[in-house]
Amino acid sequence: VSLETASTDLELGGAGEEMYRLAERLFPLGRSLTGDGVRATLRILQERLPALEMVEVPTGTRAFDWVVPDEWNVREAYLLAPDGTRVVDYADHNLHLVGYSVPVDEELSLEDLQAHLFSRPDLPDAVPYVTSYYAPFWGFCLAHRQRLGLVVGRYRAVVDSTLKPGFLTYGELVVPGRTPQEILISTYVCHPSMANNELSGIVVAAHLAGWALRETRRFTYRFVFVPETVGAIVYLSQHLEHMQRHTVAGFQVTCVGDERAMSFLPSRRGDTLADRCALHVLLNHATDVRHYSFFDRGSDERQWCSPGVDLPVVSIMRSKYGTYPEYHTSLDDMSLISPAGLDGSAQLYLRCLQLLEANHRYRATMPCEPQLSKRGLYPSLSFHGGEGKRDHLLLDFLTYCDGERDLIGVADHIGVDAERLVPIAEGLLEQGLISPVDRESGEGL
Amino acid sequence: VSLETASTDLELGGAGEEMYRLAERLFPLGRSLTGDGVRATLRILQERLPALEMVEVPTGTRAFDWVVPDEWNVREAYLLAPDGTRVVDYADHNLHLVGYSVPVDEELSLEDLQAHLFSRPDLPDAVPYVTSYYAPFWGFCLAHRQRLGLVVGRYRAVVDSTLKPGFLTYGELVVPGRTPQEILISTYVCHPSMANNELSGIVVAAHLAGWALRETRRFTYRFVFVPETVGAIVYLSQHLEHMQRHTVAGFQVTCVGDERAMSFLPSRRGDTLADRCALHVLLNHATDVRHYSFFDRGSDERQWCSPGVDLPVVSIMRSKYGTYPEYHTSLDDMSLISPAGLDGSAQLYLRCLQLLEANHRYRATMPCEPQLSKRGLYPSLSFHGGEGKRDHLLLDFLTYCDGERDLIGVADHIGVDAERLVPIAEGLLEQGLISPVDRESGEGL
Amino acid sequence: VSLETASTDLELGGAGEEMYRLAERLFPLGRSLTGDGVRATLRILQERLPALEMVEVPTGTRAFDWVVPDEWNVREAYLLAPDGTRVVDYADHNLHLVGYSVPVDEELSLEDLQAHLFSRPDLPDAVPYVTSYYAPFWGFCLAHRQRLGLVVGRYRAVVDSTLKPGFLTYGELVVPGRTPQEILISTYVCHPSMANNELSGIVVAAHLAGWALRETRRFTYRFVFVPETVGAIVYLSQHLEHMQRHTVAGFQVTCVGDERAMSFLPSRRGDTLADRCALHVLLNHATDVRHYSFFDRGSDERQWCSPGVDLPVVSIMRSKYGTYPEYHTSLDDMSLISPAGLDGSAQLYLRCLQLLEANHRYRATMPCEPQLSKRGLYPSLSFHGGEGKRDHLLLDFLTYCDGERDLIGVADHIGVDAERLVPIAEGLLEQGLISPVDRESGEGL
Repeated sequence: VSLETASTDLELGGAGEEMYRLAERLFPLGRSLTGDGVRATLRILQERLPALEMVEVPTGTRAFDWVVPDEWNVREAYLLAPDGTRVVDYADHNLHLVGYSVPVDEELSLEDLQAHLFSRPDLPDAVPYVTSYYAPFWGFCLAHRQRLGLVVGRYRAVVDSTLKPGFLTYGELVVPGRTPQEILISTYVCHPSMANNELSGIVVAAHLAGWALRETRRFTYRFVFVPETVGAIVYLSQHLEHMQRHTVAGFQVTCVGDERAMSFLPSRRGDTLADRCALHVLLNHATDVRHYSFFDRGSDERQWCSPGVDLPVVSIMRSKYGTYPEYHTSLDDMSLISPAGLDGSAQLYLRCLQLLEANHRYRATMPCEPQLSKRGLYPSLSFHGGEGKRDHLLLDFLTYCDGERDLIGVADHIGVDAERLVPIAEGLLEQGLISPVDRESGEGL
Repeated sequence: VSLETASTDLELGGAGEEMYRLAERLFPLGRSLTGDGVRATLRILQERLPALEMVEVPTGTRAFDWVVPDEWNVREAYLLAPDGTRVVDYADHNLHLVGYSVPVDEELSLEDLQAHLFSRPDLPDAVPYVTSYYAPFWGFCLAHRQRLGLVVGRYRAVVDSTLKPGFLTYGELVVPGRTPQEILISTYVCHPSMANNELSGIVVAAHLAGWALRETRRFTYRFVFVPETVGAIVYLSQHLEHMQRHTVAGFQVTCVGDERAMSFLPSRRGDTLADRCALHVLLNHATDVRHYSFFDRGSDERQWCSPGVDLPVVSIMRSKYGTYPEYHTSLDDMSLISPAGLDGSAQLYLRCLQLLEANHRYRATMPCEPQLSKRGLYPSLSFHGGEGKRDHLLLDFLTYCDGERDLIGVADHIGVDAERLVPIAEGLLEQGLISPVDRESGEGL
Repeated sequence: VSLETASTDLELGGAGEEMYRLAERLFPLGRSLTGDGVRATLRILQERLPALEMVEVPTGTRAFDWVVPDEWNVREAYLLAPDGTRVVDYADHNLHLVGYSVPVDEELSLEDLQAHLFSRPDLPDAVPYVTSYYAPFWGFCLAHRQRLGLVVGRYRAVVDSTLKPGFLTYGELVVPGRTPQEILISTYVCHPSMANNELSGIVVAAHLAGWALRETRRFTYRFVFVPETVGAIVYLSQHLEHMQRHTVAGFQVTCVGDERAMSFLPSRRGDTLADRCALHVLLNHATDVRHYSFFDRGSDERQWCSPGVDLPVVSIMRSKYGTYPEYHTSLDDMSLISPAGLDGSAQLYLRCLQLLEANHRYRATMPCEPQLSKRGLYPSLSFHGGEGKRDHLLLDFLTYCDGERDLIGVADHIGVDAERLVPIAEGLLEQGLISPVDRESGEGL
């Protein structure tokens, strides 16, 4: 029996500034599904996480129903007005170019150009984020206010991009633990300059990786930094069997940077260990949580939780993708997120990880209550109405050390923060009064 | 893998007039537990359903705790007043005679006669329906208003009936399907001239039989037209093992003719496929449904659902037996039911049958989401806030194609009419993206 | 098949006076965890229950985590005031001495004495009940009003007690039944002169023992009269395996003497046969029941229900320990309990026992409804709206004789007092229409 209970080393707080500065560095890079922007992003992460591996998957590789597309890179892209000025320029903001735009150098009337322009009348100052990964297309995104001011005349559209066989690039960091059971931390690296969705996820995931690396943990931690959807699918096509066998809980880390809300998206099944853990932490350490259903899903839990994959993955978020006005526009910039926003999210995730580390099913080692008074855990004097009320929590915890509920389950049943039970469990373990029970076999570890 | 998904050939509506005219023809016949009235009824049904078999079970045949009683037929029956006029005559209305009255030709005082008269003070113009199947007895039923007007004096009671060894007669129609799994449709043929209870059930069941015969269906359909209680028990004594092995759902069709209500009576267990299907259809296609409990049962579900039989049988009704004022009286006549009432009931039953035909557990054929955009099932352009919102229903359905929930269960979980999922399932099947899973083995069909 | 259904011999009521008088006799005895007070108590019970065995367990005997302590007896104990008067005397009330006080004969100032005095400022006229079983200590308990009046000066504290190797004494009475399945009735015998907590439990348990002895019952009844906590633990260390194998339900009988409330404390699991039975009886025969949770436990259910023991034990109480103002003080005297209070509690327990005796899972012996009219159990004349409404209860009961629910479960499902089903079940058994189903095997007994 090895003692797997992690001490509650809640090394929380104070990392917000560091995460924010990392996000600032990553902000300008031109990420997409593939290309050098992804590589540059991962290289910066490697400065802090040298063990992070950059994996290159060739164009044309099959992954279930999908095929890795051509790699896309952009040298420059702009729109010349009839008077020759660059009215829209990729160099100003990488959102100006529709993602995966094919090369073009063409003159056309404003009228014909309109089919290639995207703007948001409801957000007249925002440059929207548009992509066309799987249908050849080119286009420019701009503020609606600017679009309305475009003069009639001939425009020249220049997209100097390459779309040719290359690689899909992702980052992977596996931190071995004392057991082969794994926690999955997933985030994505395919969005251009947007802060809450997506840089907040990258920097919080990187912070969690730092925590995992600090000492050998009970669980093995698998961090994946992939392009959304096709990246997750490619990753699963390579690791499905292993992940299904070993993953005990997972978290899709996204939209964790602002301070306006806390949100929760359950797994497809809704009752996995990841769900129970996250809900317990949110109940005890967050207020006004917006509870979404799995029908509101939108990120890579779509793949992790799909019927043939079925991993226990949930999301704790700030303002959820698709729900805040700046979503998928240039307004989702560094002013939208904050050190405090990032730090609060990271703290909740660390609480989850530390609770999972400490979560065991325990069984009392002998029938009946132990004699606690001889161990100083119970008052020797019985005097109802007198001073020295006894602490019921230890006895209540012991009462449910029946090998059926895990620590989180006992805490839910008692109605107490599981973090309060962790030191109690440690004390009882040291005294030999309880022993952990293995999850699968029902036998002691 | 044979494609068992029925197309949603909702051939609904328009049959109300036809069913109503059939009920009109059947109305005058003097049905009872046994006798020529039952045979005449079944013979008329055979005109439309030539495959309907008329089965004769001899008097004295044992069926579990029961014995087939003597056959009863009536030549004439009347009551002569002191002045010699026929004040009550079976020829006027077959409800005037207590069912299974023994022969009598006797003079007696009005005072002595009263013990043989039945009327309803609360419904002074109604002739009540009274039977005495298993205790020898004779009696007359009449309007309470008429009874109060009977003059003092000597009356002559004449019942020219026969009660002797013969047969219990029932109708059976088994329509073979592509699988031996069966749907049971049951109704009864033992009530004299009453419309909602019972002719509505007979004509709707006959209409459903017409639908079942129109083409080869996935399921085998078993239609039974039996005298209530003893007929169902006799039928079960002959078919119990077969029906227990093959019946996946069943419906007791009764009281389906008026327009005042929709009612639902669950099976004894309450959670069978029949319950889930009927509740789903009612939720999506009916309003103001009266939900009864199995403790309100009263028809042959008493036998189909009894502990040693335990078939999954429910009832969708209009105004339920025992709950409407005209029940079991001459007021339950053809004015109480209508073509629209019959048609609405038949439509709900057809929806149930067609949903059962289309109901499979499906499993996605590969992990992760399929690439829907290359199949034209997902927009190639991603532009949040732009036009062209994608339809989430297909993705939501796919997300629960995990081989656990059936189509009805997925529809209930999503909160959508299952009929909307049927064409989606067909499309996904054609594309090879899902496959049906057999109910028992958990393997693909 | 032996007919295990007990007749509903509800020999209830009228025993209150007898129980009260027994409590009066037991009241003055100086009980503690061990010692002659326990023996004297059990000897008085043996007058009525000659088969009650007194078991002596030697000091030093190990019981799981516990060791039987030294035996404690008191010759005399008092406090002399500076003027030589006995201001506090064990002879006046045995609560005046802290339980398990070590011997002492010492002069000390009032100031030094205070550390050895216990009183309740909130109850200035009450002498509190204080013990120190496992830490050597001496002390006196007195009314707070008296304590405030103690004059400054030298006091002499005399405790002439013995604390030396001896025995822990408990009482056990096993009444064999027709089956080895057991009902546990537990109460405790370690409190000095207090009426509701604890004498009420002793006298009601003794009354139930009288009922169990009156005739051979279906179940074997195990009555235990033990010192609380360590006594129950010692008892379990000797009988654990047997009790786990045979106990089908158990009751911790305590605080059953006053008339102010009815209370229920569930078992740890909350859904055992004992829980279902007690809740059913309380629902049908008590009003304003206070429902506690297992987190409010405090008596020997702490041991019976502990994870490694896990017996199905519940408590039906009057005013629960710890909840009424007089608890654990001299105010919990004979004026607090009453014959009516004891009798009402005893009646509820007898209803539980008799219901358990009658509780079987039944299965209908044949498919479909039996023909009840030929047995006189159903009207032969069918006349809706006429007189002679049929009793649905028999049919409803039969409908759930499916071998799945037990009699209590069927009663809960129907929503009727199970006592009404008992004679119905007996009648159906006699007619051969149902048969009992064994609990473990699912087969008929």
